[in-house]
Amino acid sequence: MSGSAVAADRSVCAPLPVLGRDVLVPLVTGGEVDYAALDYAASAPALQRVWDDVAAYAPYYGSVHRGAGYLSQLSTDLFENSRRTIEEFLGCRTEDQAVFTRSTTDSLNLLAAVLPENTRVFVFETEHHASLLPWEQRPDVTVTYLNAPRTPQQAVDTLEKALAAREPYGPALVCVTGASNVTGELWPVRELAAAAHAHGARIVLDAAQLVPHHPVDLGELDVDWVAFSGHKLYAPFGAGVLAGRADWLRDAAPYLAGGGASRKVSRRPDGGVDVEWHTTAARHEAGSPNVIGAYAIASACRALTEAGFEGLVAREQELIARLRTGLAEVPEVTVLSLFGDDAARVGVLSFVVEGWNSSHFAAALSAEYGIGVRDGLFCAHPLVRTLLGSAPQDPGECGAPDAAPGEKSLNAIRVSLGVGTPDEHVDRFLRAVTELVTNGARWNYRTEAGRCVPARSA
Amino acid sequence: MSGSAVAADRSVCAPLPVLGRDVLVPLVTGGEVDYAALDYAASAPALQRVWDDVAAYAPYYGSVHRGAGYLSQLSTDLFENSRRTIEEFLGCRTEDQAVFTRSTTDSLNLLAAVLPENTRVFVFETEHHASLLPWEQRPDVTVTYLNAPRTPQQAVDTLEKALAAREPYGPALVCVTGASNVTGELWPVRELAAAAHAHGARIVLDAAQLVPHHPVDLGELDVDWVAFSGHKLYAPFGAGVLAGRADWLRDAAPYLAGGGASRKVSRRPDGGVDVEWHTTAARHEAGSPNVIGAYAIASACRALTEAGFEGLVAREQELIARLRTGLAEVPEVTVLSLFGDDAARVGVLSFVVEGWNSSHFAAALSAEYGIGVRDGLFCAHPLVRTLLGSAPQDPGECGAPDAAPGEKSLNAIRVSLGVGTPDEHVDRFLRAVTELVTNGARWNYRTEAGRCVPARSA
Repeated sequence: MSGSAVAADRSVCAPLPVLGRDVLVPLVTGGEVDYAALDYAASAPALQRVWDDVAAYAPYYGSVHRGAGYLSQLSTDLFENSRRTIEEFLGCRTEDQAVFTRSTTDSLNLLAAVLPENTRVFVFETEHHASLLPWEQRPDVTVTYLNAPRTPQQAVDTLEKALAAREPYGPALVCVTGASNVTGELWPVRELAAAAHAHGARIVLDAAQLVPHHPVDLGELDVDWVAFSGHKLYAPFGAGVLAGRADWLRDAAPYLAGGGASRKVSRRPDGGVDVEWHTTAARHEAGSPNVIGAYAIASACRALTEAGFEGLVAREQELIARLRTGLAEVPEVTVLSLFGDDAARVGVLSFVVEGWNSSHFAAALSAEYGIGVRDGLFCAHPLVRTLLGSAPQDPGECGAPDAAPGEKSLNAIRVSLGVGTPDEHVDRFLRAVTELVTNGARWNYRTEAGRCVPARSA
Repeated sequence: MSGSAVAADRSVCAPLPVLGRDVLVPLVTGGEVDYAALDYAASAPALQRVWDDVAAYAPYYGSVHRGAGYLSQLSTDLFENSRRTIEEFLGCRTEDQAVFTRSTTDSLNLLAAVLPENTRVFVFETEHHASLLPWEQRPDVTVTYLNAPRTPQQAVDTLEKALAAREPYGPALVCVTGASNVTGELWPVRELAAAAHAHGARIVLDAAQLVPHHPVDLGELDVDWVAFSGHKLYAPFGAGVLAGRADWLRDAAPYLAGGGASRKVSRRPDGGVDVEWHTTAARHEAGSPNVIGAYAIASACRALTEAGFEGLVAREQELIARLRTGLAEVPEVTVLSLFGDDAARVGVLSFVVEGWNSSHFAAALSAEYGIGVRDGLFCAHPLVRTLLGSAPQDPGECGAPDAAPGEKSLNAIRVSLGVGTPDEHVDRFLRAVTELVTNGARWNYRTEAGRCVPARSA
């Protein structure tokens, strides 16, 4: 690749068109405003391109794999080609395979189900529950929860020490996030993979927050598996992926038992049933596959690649830097961080506001500014509590009194963005934070059916 | 309801518009024809209404359950209201709940996972692999496979005898299909449910082939659970449902471990992790839910109800009767049946043609007439082998010689229809069968990458 091509690739892209970019939402103070979706870390809007691809395909939808009709064969090809596209996008190695699941959670539960007996799993307490919890579902698996590191190097050291000390020195798996769903901070995946392999362990990358924001290359990172969700990758049609080494998957019992996974089923003379299972990805994909979900993910991969993923990353880095600079100017705001200001990060950031209950603050951002963020513990309870220094208790509801100055917050606010975020959303968000902190909310909020809603004007 | 209202309800509806109704496919003999989708039993086209609803919602898509933004709250309501709509459509009782899964297969695997320890499962060998195979995944569960009955009454008698003889007389589950995916024949669900309950067992209805073709009412049938897939109910967006009694689900470990299912997660002083799981449907729905998939199913339920499901059923009965009458006039055709000519049935039918390999026949229907059917053993190997009287071996590929007169077929052809099927598709299919049987195929076919494709003109 020539120097100028690299430069072009790295130039800042315009935001990619997403569905919902023109949706107006009502403000409690009157009037409407276009919705500012700043909860990409939970679920991202569909790319317009993904929607267009799905809409163009939908009339050609047909039963896959065993249908004899033209649309069945077209749909089968589309489904299997989607797998290839995704494998390429992830830099899969020749022997790797992508299995379609319904989400990152499902992918990691699948991996938990296929671990060899008595595998030891090592996971930092800082993980999302989807990476933290699947392993103990297996009664024979022992999980070591590692304390939150405060630097990337400390993460590597902690892991190495734990892996070396394991007894017996049997099969082991490390599960680590690529980018935190709370702080957005990147984890030293390549270094952790090297540590894992040096100690005879395998490693799975929870890329739910990484894949939408950053190129991921299995070969380059040298991770054994990667898990992610379509709905965070601008393709919210119910599909996810587990991609990587095929051996443990091939050797294990099928994740779901049923058609598609079974190659041959026959009664035994003793009245029982013998099953011969497939040994390919189909082994773990029983039931009719979610063709539209798989195709939507492949479409998103193509769209990001064709738009120039490096340029999209550069733009997102500008936006998150602007967000951080803006928040740093509001003394009441504390941004949550594990690795400090210099950490590399994606467009995800959590914070608390002195004197505010976070649910109340998030409700005001929505009702008074049309901004959608998230409040709570973000399905990463141990991490958020560590960052807040709070005790393991339930998050306060918005009806609860706002934290007094000096008091610890019980939950946080998360703002997150992606390839569809226009500059204006970041500007509006920073203006809203400043105004709310300076002037207070213009409305009172109360909790109704677990939701913080406007009650009356303040 | 007045007499005339009932009469109006029972009148024959026009077909409902589905996606793909105008799609043209090429014929091997030249020219194009609109595709005749006659593989509804595998996967049905989306209703136009379902697509329109999904398209109208898509710009409003947002993260559900814990997002503070307007679209998050709208999407959360839409998701939970979809659950309510589906529960109503299924005639759920007050204490029932619908859990969103990805398919019937997933629903039945979920149920297998929550069975009380040492449950005995009773299942006829005639079931689809999705109903036949999930149970043995549980090492503590014993499965009794019951031989194919030849009348509905024999099914009830066989089940009663097996249930009464079980030793010990502990927790038991019966799993039975509502309508066979091979013969389309209805099973005596109400009678089997009564037998199960009389013997202290519970019963789950595999309604994959019933829900799209026939109203299902849990209360009226008195079944404990029902499982089905969106993609067979004209809503192919990757979601399925398990609806019914909440107790076993509430008492069991979560199906998937992760966010959404976990209410509270905290480190223990000993370094481990304590989890408090939700006790509602969310317990088994970890990960971001497939909102579009759930909404699509609810939309289909509304569409069928509003069009008048009774009228749609009446129309389908006319079509399947016409199909059967037409095929009865072709002496080379044998329609597969367990319960005989008088059995009640839905619009699904399988057959073999004397002197033809079924894959070859299905390929000719596609290439020469633009008709999409299915060939093989339909993920119900024991049933199809019983019906064919063939040995448990692989289905012959289309390159294999056609069965000689008098020889047994190794696989079958299935034709299936639904609410979108126009009369012309049935007419074309009957004409095609007659012409192929009378004149032979106009092309030769060979197997290529497991698929039967045209090779050269005959």
